Amino acid sequence: MRAMCRPFAAQSPLVAGFMRRVRTCGNGAGILQQSLPFLVGGQALGSVSPLAAEVLATFPEVFSVSPGKDGAVELVAGGDSLEARSEAVANVLARLRASGRVPMLAGWRDEAWPVKADFDAPAALVVERAAGALFGVRAYGCHVNGIVDGNKLWVAKRAKTKQTFPGKLDHIVAGGMAHGEKPGENVVRECGEEASVPPDLASAARPAGFIEYCQADESGWGVTRDVIFCYDLEMPATFVPSSNDGEVESFALWDIRDVIASLVADNDDWKPNVAVVIIDMLVRRGLIAPENVGYVELVRSLRT
Amino acid sequence: MRAMCRPFAAQSPLVAGFMRRVRTCGNGAGILQQSLPFLVGGQALGSVSPLAAEVLATFPEVFSVSPGKDGAVELVAGGDSLEARSEAVANVLARLRASGRVPMLAGWRDEAWPVKADFDAPAALVVERAAGALFGVRAYGCHVNGIVDGNKLWVAKRAKTKQTFPGKLDHIVAGGMAHGEKPGENVVRECGEEASVPPDLASAARPAGFIEYCQADESGWGVTRDVIFCYDLEMPATFVPSSNDGEVESFALWDIRDVIASLVADNDDWKPNVAVVIIDMLVRRGLIAPENVGYVELVRSLRT
Repeated sequence: MRAMCRPFAAQSPLVAGFMRRVRTCGNGAGILQQSLPFLVGGQALGSVSPLAAEVLATFPEVFSVSPGKDGAVELVAGGDSLEARSEAVANVLARLRASGRVPMLAGWRDEAWPVKADFDAPAALVVERAAGALFGVRAYGCHVNGIVDGNKLWVAKRAKTKQTFPGKLDHIVAGGMAHGEKPGENVVRECGEEASVPPDLASAARPAGFIEYCQADESGWGVTRDVIFCYDLEMPATFVPSSNDGEVESFALWDIRDVIASLVADNDDWKPNVAVVIIDMLVRRGLIAPENVGYVELVRSLRT
Repeated sequence: MRAMCRPFAAQSPLVAGFMRRVRTCGNGAGILQQSLPFLVGGQALGSVSPLAAEVLATFPEVFSVSPGKDGAVELVAGGDSLEARSEAVANVLARLRASGRVPMLAGWRDEAWPVKADFDAPAALVVERAAGALFGVRAYGCHVNGIVDGNKLWVAKRAKTKQTFPGKLDHIVAGGMAHGEKPGENVVRECGEEASVPPDLASAARPAGFIEYCQADESGWGVTRDVIFCYDLEMPATFVPSSNDGEVESFALWDIRDVIASLVADNDDWKPNVAVVIIDMLVRRGLIAPENVGYVELVRSLRT
């Protein structure tokens, strides 16, 4: 005989599929728990894995590393000066890159990233983008949902030569924010570089909130802690994007139902954070409803 | 001489005004901290203030109250039966209502509210709506942004006879979800009752996520812990709402810029949770941007 009590309703297939994407993107909790706080000017601005801490400890003139439960990795070089701090760290990173000891530094970008207490705070340190996950500092980026007729989405396929996530499905336009850049400026710049979207069209992109996650670096050496500002750009059906910087292999206009089916499917086709930004857009546009069992948990998970 | 270090940028006036609304709505943290967990079937499903716990302790056959740091208020009547539990609690509430000891019970609604571990869980208990804040249980509701031409919002003025927030500005349609009701059904029902919106128009309302907050009850006896599902309903300019149940004094179509100006102003005109649902809509529609200093904190605060 069956149990009499009514069981919890099973998660809807839509929510279950979406939650899988959110978990894949937010898989950094484990490594974050083992990490040491990264202190700059007395503030905890990042998280350093045990592996990374061990390597940084070999530069005691720049980093003071105290292991253990109440330990930390503290930047001790450069005093209060942004420039001197950044130069001291850059010198360490250059040596680590040359030594080949830290895998993620193979993805060197020559892009300056600000390390800040919060989004509006002044930079306390500027580091090479490829080292962001080494220090586990919060990074900020912008993703653009390129929407046509309200029911189609431009999907890019990343070039196979990309250092990160080669060949994965991506937004028409997405990028990290460089030091000193504002979100709206970033969107217009990346629109031009990545998809040849002219500035007058690009500037019609509308901000719609953000997603947040903590992702384990593929190398196992660190975590990416990202805030991604989500933009929606309604695009005329006549516009066809083209790559301007070789980072995209091809663009295709997908029916939103195909996007949903692919996100729900058990595939590894999507760059993880792109999937989460699209799910946020589906929530905002009512393509998933509170009637889908697990909706509340899903929506909560987009910002944690 | 001025200090040389660059100060944190000041919050934008828009964000500062909106944050004031969010804080007014989410003012329950203090009372929540002093409260005892409310246990039903071994699960903590609410929070009971010291004042409420003292009164509930006078019904030891229904509630076991252990005060102090590790204390709790436990429902001990009714065993595993939803019906028996609910009846036992209803008897206590009827006696408290008759006694006049608990101010919030003066707002008796004769509406059954489910007490659940999460939104999709089965009800563990059903209580009169007016007692929700007495037990500090999570409640669920739906609010509808009635939007015309993408830049105007229908604003209701609550009747002066309403038990809660008389005379305050409100959504065209907003309501709590009764036991057994689904969000989409709730929206269509309330659209008809509150604003005479016909079902075919009401069913075009699109879900767009939710806000969450913990609000101190006006009486000081408890907290309202709400999840409000946000719906956008694009309405034809020809439709004019009218109250069907006497709960609304009047409706007016506001330019969205006037809505923003009123929300930013230092007034007490808005029902607090209505303001937060509108701010969520402004975020989703790009009427506030990441360039507004404090944006990230504001957006985070909408769901906590």
